[in-house]
Amino acid sequence: MENLYAASPKQVREMFRQETLVKPTAGMCGGYAQGNLVILPKDLAYDFLLFTQRNPKPCPVLEVSDAGSREFKLTAPGSDIARDLPLYRVYENGIMTGEYKNVEQFWREDFVSFLIGCSFTFESALIDEGISIRHIEQGCNVPMYVTNISCKTAGIFCGPTVCSMRPIPYEQVVKAVQTTARYPKVHGAPIHIGDPSHIGIKDINKPEFGDSVEIRKGEVPVFWACGVTPQAVVMNVKPSIVITHAPGYMFITDVKNSQLSD
Amino acid sequence: MENLYAASPKQVREMFRQETLVKPTAGMCGGYAQGNLVILPKDLAYDFLLFTQRNPKPCPVLEVSDAGSREFKLTAPGSDIARDLPLYRVYENGIMTGEYKNVEQFWREDFVSFLIGCSFTFESALIDEGISIRHIEQGCNVPMYVTNISCKTAGIFCGPTVCSMRPIPYEQVVKAVQTTARYPKVHGAPIHIGDPSHIGIKDINKPEFGDSVEIRKGEVPVFWACGVTPQAVVMNVKPSIVITHAPGYMFITDVKNSQLSD
Repeated sequence: MENLYAASPKQVREMFRQETLVKPTAGMCGGYAQGNLVILPKDLAYDFLLFTQRNPKPCPVLEVSDAGSREFKLTAPGSDIARDLPLYRVYENGIMTGEYKNVEQFWREDFVSFLIGCSFTFESALIDEGISIRHIEQGCNVPMYVTNISCKTAGIFCGPTVCSMRPIPYEQVVKAVQTTARYPKVHGAPIHIGDPSHIGIKDINKPEFGDSVEIRKGEVPVFWACGVTPQAVVMNVKPSIVITHAPGYMFITDVKNSQLSD
Repeated sequence: MENLYAASPKQVREMFRQETLVKPTAGMCGGYAQGNLVILPKDLAYDFLLFTQRNPKPCPVLEVSDAGSREFKLTAPGSDIARDLPLYRVYENGIMTGEYKNVEQFWREDFVSFLIGCSFTFESALIDEGISIRHIEQGCNVPMYVTNISCKTAGIFCGPTVCSMRPIPYEQVVKAVQTTARYPKVHGAPIHIGDPSHIGIKDINKPEFGDSVEIRKGEVPVFWACGVTPQAVVMNVKPSIVITHAPGYMFITDVKNSQLSD
């Protein structure tokens, strides 16, 4: 397979549009920000936008489309939201009813699309600082946990904060905080460092989402707010229809990671 | 008059509520953030919230109330938005129809209140860094200008960015950028440094809002996005009713300025 690290976002989105490539996007288009996608009917969009405003750490919004528009015109001019991701999930009344390579057949004029920052951006900043990311080393998904930290309710949307965890050597914890704090648009600084039980996590080896990773001697678990939070919160209210990216199959923007730092 | 610099926000809001004090709020409750108020009917709130999301520098939202609620429950628990400001303005169909010490008589169940960050916060940070603020020295209002920098349109809301200007000595310009950059929730770093004509300002001595201030030899005009932008944008569309604070008569929150820094 050709190396898509050096490919441009536009090139890769075109491959997804043509459906000649259907792969998780990690490692593609080095230096460019990727995002989580949530597509909702307009009648839910106000409450959801307010939810993101009140909960910016788990829900850092990169862009909200105009109602009915299939383009993220600010972060990816010329994009087609209904075709430019490699894989989508459709949920009806809270139940996943299928995975699709494009969602044109489901498109409605009242759809609003939310693009939400993704931890890939701060992970590449951590790696640049010499901080290794365990789940990348292990070739698995990041472990994610439901915490006892409530999000601030907005209209019909409420629920707990979901966080991701990365084991960090004690001597790199401060650097990890400083580095990720520079990226408030992609979850920012950690929400907790150390004892998992303090934020309501019963068993660090049993994440609710993703995969368990090894925590070695001399390492401390560090927790960041996670983009699964808004998805979980939307699913809670079982809307008639919601479309999201399939986990790991993200939207690739034309925005450089460095543009998302302070 | 008693010195209200040391008073608590709750005390001062109570005085406004009792209408025993009707004064501009500059200098009150030292260390606490003050905010601009915009109250809109719910049917305009989604477009306005989206406008603030797309234009965070001129429109840094501190809090959005629940529809119909008169409380900023996150930034000022126990507050009454309809009574806790010293002076309000009511606009009907784009025309100011009166100033009031409370707006209970106008209250509607479909009102949504927006609290938008105010430059008082970063001005106190500048002063702490030894940077003098000319309009405070001169005892007048900050000069504000309409620029040629378009805001990003959201639904019915569009318009130019309005900026405020403070003359800064050349040797303090970098410090002024660094200091205000730490406060993205109150307009953040400047949008322009130097030649006013570069951002479409024809005559620096004729601000569209506020007062002209002296620019001395060895000083450069520095421009920040201004909270007048969202107000101007709302007025553009001449909604049936909008309520705002009267200029300078701000809402005083329980949030410390320092909590608004990164």
